[in-house]
Amino acid sequence: LGLWRWQRAALAASEEDEDEKEEEELRQRFMAPPVSGLRELRRRRRELRSRMELLIMETQGEVCRALAALDPGAAFAVDTWERKEGGGGISCVLQDGEVFEKAGVNVSVVFGLLSEEAARQMRSRGKSLKAKDGKLPFCAMGVSSVIHPKNPHVPTMHFNYRYFEIEEADGTKQWWFGGGTDLTPTYLNEEDAVHFHKTLKEACDKHDLKLYPKYKKWCDDYFYIKHRGERRGIGGIFFDDVDSPSKEEVFQFVKSCAKAVVPCYIPIVKRHCHDSFTPEEKLWQQLRRGRYVEFNLVYDRGTKFGLLTPGSRVESILMSLPLTARWEYMHTPPETSKEAEILEVLRNPKDWVH
Amino acid sequence: LGLWRWQRAALAASEEDEDEKEEEELRQRFMAPPVSGLRELRRRRRELRSRMELLIMETQGEVCRALAALDPGAAFAVDTWERKEGGGGISCVLQDGEVFEKAGVNVSVVFGLLSEEAARQMRSRGKSLKAKDGKLPFCAMGVSSVIHPKNPHVPTMHFNYRYFEIEEADGTKQWWFGGGTDLTPTYLNEEDAVHFHKTLKEACDKHDLKLYPKYKKWCDDYFYIKHRGERRGIGGIFFDDVDSPSKEEVFQFVKSCAKAVVPCYIPIVKRHCHDSFTPEEKLWQQLRRGRYVEFNLVYDRGTKFGLLTPGSRVESILMSLPLTARWEYMHTPPETSKEAEILEVLRNPKDWVH
Repeated sequence: LGLWRWQRAALAASEEDEDEKEEEELRQRFMAPPVSGLRELRRRRRELRSRMELLIMETQGEVCRALAALDPGAAFAVDTWERKEGGGGISCVLQDGEVFEKAGVNVSVVFGLLSEEAARQMRSRGKSLKAKDGKLPFCAMGVSSVIHPKNPHVPTMHFNYRYFEIEEADGTKQWWFGGGTDLTPTYLNEEDAVHFHKTLKEACDKHDLKLYPKYKKWCDDYFYIKHRGERRGIGGIFFDDVDSPSKEEVFQFVKSCAKAVVPCYIPIVKRHCHDSFTPEEKLWQQLRRGRYVEFNLVYDRGTKFGLLTPGSRVESILMSLPLTARWEYMHTPPETSKEAEILEVLRNPKDWVH
Repeated sequence: LGLWRWQRAALAASEEDEDEKEEEELRQRFMAPPVSGLRELRRRRRELRSRMELLIMETQGEVCRALAALDPGAAFAVDTWERKEGGGGISCVLQDGEVFEKAGVNVSVVFGLLSEEAARQMRSRGKSLKAKDGKLPFCAMGVSSVIHPKNPHVPTMHFNYRYFEIEEADGTKQWWFGGGTDLTPTYLNEEDAVHFHKTLKEACDKHDLKLYPKYKKWCDDYFYIKHRGERRGIGGIFFDDVDSPSKEEVFQFVKSCAKAVVPCYIPIVKRHCHDSFTPEEKLWQQLRRGRYVEFNLVYDRGTKFGLLTPGSRVESILMSLPLTARWEYMHTPPETSKEAEILEVLRNPKDWVH
């Protein structure tokens, strides 16, 4: 019996060792300790909230490491921040590197109480939710990123994957996922466009062949700068308010998309980050950055919602803006120029994979 | 009798000569022929609409000439444009000069039919208007301008004076004026701030001593970048939806304000346009330009309303954006720096003339 007890203790100790080893491994893959705490996440590892938080932390780490490897002179500054009303986040920003002008990868995990009005605005379909005393407990988490490279032949890339939970008065939980990955080149490179879309399509196709065409179109529709009649970029995928077929299946889909970010984008950066460019090409990039700012400040739901949310972290929300941008009155590129070529695609989105 | 007839004809001819002389004079003071036509404006010279159109044309000419005189190497490009739905405008833009990075002075005179919803949005007080068949004949005209100088010691200046008329179902006309002039320095110069506000106060005081304090506060409240907790600049005056005491009196007040633009601003440009500056000062200017963009795209009613209006001229609306702007993640100037000094005033507006 004495031996038995000893063996049990040894076994428990070795399990603890295993746990610690696994924890240590996670710690090395993350940019900072997760908002909910590593212990807590591992303890509640079967809950989707925890699995999603681990996924967004892992995605942040993966993307930051892949970008940093391409810009050896620069490093990500890591900021952790707390939200007074509940939760917090980790912002990783690399600014003014050799390859990247501004690269931000942001994780946020926030919770608390929402007004019915705010809850309605959060869902793109605007479903109404029944609140207890007008307040709804909610949890919102996501990873979001915008990468603005220096070289005008390397496109800007954006991705965002997010999960929401809202508890109604009767205790039922509403949940949904949103996200997407999209590319904004200064100049059109067909090979890059095809590679980017194909990689996304493969990630989608593993789950349902209908997803890529549907979310590709949603992306073209969403990133539309109405007053210019142009899309922000050459698209990718975008979805919001997705709560079917099941929580597990949507999570697996989101996981595939998140895992596709690095293979989508990094090869394109590698291919072009040493391309030579002219001052005119740099100027056109700056004008396109101006359009990026226009979309984000005038139309983007996430930015608008973020800026209007009390206690939101403005610097993390506006991390999406480029380091520099330019607006010239009545700039119109000549008809057969490379500048006109990308404008044509922004005005009339193309099908890149069929 | 023959002589009498001859004398009358000669008199008429000399009156016509006088008319032509006056027309010629006006033509030289304007940047382009007015939207409503010079003949038509002079024929209907007693109507307020015509007097306002002459005033905005004259203001455009005055301001453009005063600016051009300070930047001899550059010239204003003059664009006239027509609005398919009725009316048009004249955009004068000087870009990339020696003194001015981007200076735009825009006149627009548009008319047509408004939906009840659009009409409601146009009035800041949101009064409802009775429409015939859901449509309201309207006329909107104004002069608006943003001047972004190159030297960080010369502030950005904005002004706008506008007049609206809407005809209700029963034929009654609603009319109101709006406008203002405000200053956005990169660095605080108290002497400039006092000169600017004093000149505006003098223009207001000629009409009613209550106007300056009221419109100064309105300006501080309006140009507020909520998510930053900062004003866009050090203010000036701002008013909207003003329809009392009488059309004539408000017009005379607006006229005084419009005439004050040059004496408000030009002495400040002259004083500082040859000041030396460091690359750090230029950088801070670029960051402040970023905030200017944030205000204009996220909050400015005129910009938002303009971008949402079908048939609006986007290039003229977005002329207000600077040539270049910059966003750095988490930029915070040291506590006792000159950068922190202006931030303090933007966070807590000061009284400059008492």
